[in-house]
Amino acid sequence: MLSIGIDLGGTNIAAGVVTSEGKVIAQAQRPTLAQRPWQQVVEDMAEVSLDALAMAGVGVEQVHAIGVGVPGNYDRKNGVVVFCTNLGWHNVPLREAMRRYIDVPLYADNDANVAAFAEAMAGVSRNVYSSLLLTLGTGVGSGIIVDGKIWSGSHGVAGEVGHMIYRAGGEQCTCGQRGCFERYASATALIRIAREATMRYPDSEMKSIPPERMNAKTVVDAARRGDEAAMEAFDEYTTHLSLGIVSCINVFDPGMIVLGGGVSRAGDFLLEPVRRKVEKQKFFKALPIGGVELATLGNDAGIIGAALLHRT
Amino acid sequence: MLSIGIDLGGTNIAAGVVTSEGKVIAQAQRPTLAQRPWQQVVEDMAEVSLDALAMAGVGVEQVHAIGVGVPGNYDRKNGVVVFCTNLGWHNVPLREAMRRYIDVPLYADNDANVAAFAEAMAGVSRNVYSSLLLTLGTGVGSGIIVDGKIWSGSHGVAGEVGHMIYRAGGEQCTCGQRGCFERYASATALIRIAREATMRYPDSEMKSIPPERMNAKTVVDAARRGDEAAMEAFDEYTTHLSLGIVSCINVFDPGMIVLGGGVSRAGDFLLEPVRRKVEKQKFFKALPIGGVELATLGNDAGIIGAALLHRT
Repeated sequence: MLSIGIDLGGTNIAAGVVTSEGKVIAQAQRPTLAQRPWQQVVEDMAEVSLDALAMAGVGVEQVHAIGVGVPGNYDRKNGVVVFCTNLGWHNVPLREAMRRYIDVPLYADNDANVAAFAEAMAGVSRNVYSSLLLTLGTGVGSGIIVDGKIWSGSHGVAGEVGHMIYRAGGEQCTCGQRGCFERYASATALIRIAREATMRYPDSEMKSIPPERMNAKTVVDAARRGDEAAMEAFDEYTTHLSLGIVSCINVFDPGMIVLGGGVSRAGDFLLEPVRRKVEKQKFFKALPIGGVELATLGNDAGIIGAALLHRT
Repeated sequence: MLSIGIDLGGTNIAAGVVTSEGKVIAQAQRPTLAQRPWQQVVEDMAEVSLDALAMAGVGVEQVHAIGVGVPGNYDRKNGVVVFCTNLGWHNVPLREAMRRYIDVPLYADNDANVAAFAEAMAGVSRNVYSSLLLTLGTGVGSGIIVDGKIWSGSHGVAGEVGHMIYRAGGEQCTCGQRGCFERYASATALIRIAREATMRYPDSEMKSIPPERMNAKTVVDAARRGDEAAMEAFDEYTTHLSLGIVSCINVFDPGMIVLGGGVSRAGDFLLEPVRRKVEKQKFFKALPIGGVELATLGNDAGIIGAALLHRT
């Protein structure tokens, strides 16, 4: 049983042919060129899927489902992308439009939900009853999985943990609100915190890095080398991240918390302080909580999760 | 089909005989006297249940289940109250102990979960797939219901929305953390905010109220009468409450948010600004969200929810 998974991003469209166990046997990609009319983007989504099939030496008749992770909100009932801010899409009839090119059942969901689903089906949170994935990138994406299904909530808007209020009245968020969790736990937040720390440490090695080249890895690398400003910034960052995780545990107590996205590439350097601080800050001191783990599927999560959406 | 519901509080034990539709046909109560050994409290829980049965003219053989709402954490698998801070209970074998007096299956859960369950079975959130109850009292209790079941999370610690971090680094909470939601959305928080406002308004009518007599109703009544300090305080309070509700919506998007507890007695005076602010502050402006409603079962929620726990 094979299916196609499409990871629709603001920059690239990636598609892969995926087995029912979540193994990618071939993949292809092309640029999204998001400014084009949506019809052309959908046509390319179909073509890149056919490219991947050709590379796998598989005919379209061997494919029983197609799945898409969209950077926005998808209405499953009507098969419509309600909106994708990055692509400028509003009410795009994705299911109907794709059917003209590849006539198999189409499933779609928000990309962070898809990544969480991928980890729960074929990654670190496999066989865990409920899990929460946080992708620590430009913002904080998130997806909640319960009993092998994406928890989309009652109106399809659940899983926006990045916009949980974390410090009411705090940093201005792009969403219009102040103090959203992603202002404190994203890669963007780590960079901001590091810049502030650099002001207090004139000898910091980060002082010489031009602002446009500063990223999460720069800060992590400097902290690993013992740069005081970077260490202090990373410590503040992991405190915020841990407190937000504790919030999520206090609200819905997932069986596992999975960290993905750019900052998670810091590996154990991130995991060790986060696990320690979550344990220290948890509410019920005497009771166990879900473990914090690193995502294992990396960039393939989008393709794998999308390809397996037919299971939901 | 009748069952017994017991609401075990720090001050009183209340028990009721309840129909399968959630109607209380008789109830009785006696003081908890929480300092006693737990064995004596359990004996009184049984006796007050028998009192309620006698008042209803019903024999114990007509009762098929007994349910208990405990102000703490209950381990369903082992039938043990893991802890009840107010009662000083630790690892109390409630199921086994009650069986000596009334030998029917016993169910128990945290009291806020039980109240949420009551509203979902027989109150305002009946027939709603998922709901969140917030009880606005000394603290903020909460319970999450999904598909007619209490969502207890993976380790039985879900539904502590009062200890969601709302303003990291903010007000000190009794739990040891800073900035928990209940420090901004409980009746206690409303009183604190009103006191602070009174400092800025020397003419406030609240100025003459002795601190020990100040409560949520005092503030609400003064605000209704147009007292500026009280109006400002209540406005700040509803902003906090609404933002916290928006956080919950962004995380798990319940079908309905139900408000109970002391502050909810303000009725529409509370509901109108909260609904307006939640709508204004929501993340997905174009998508619908769950409605905010008042709990309808009042003080009986604890008995009704406990009595119906056998359905979970």
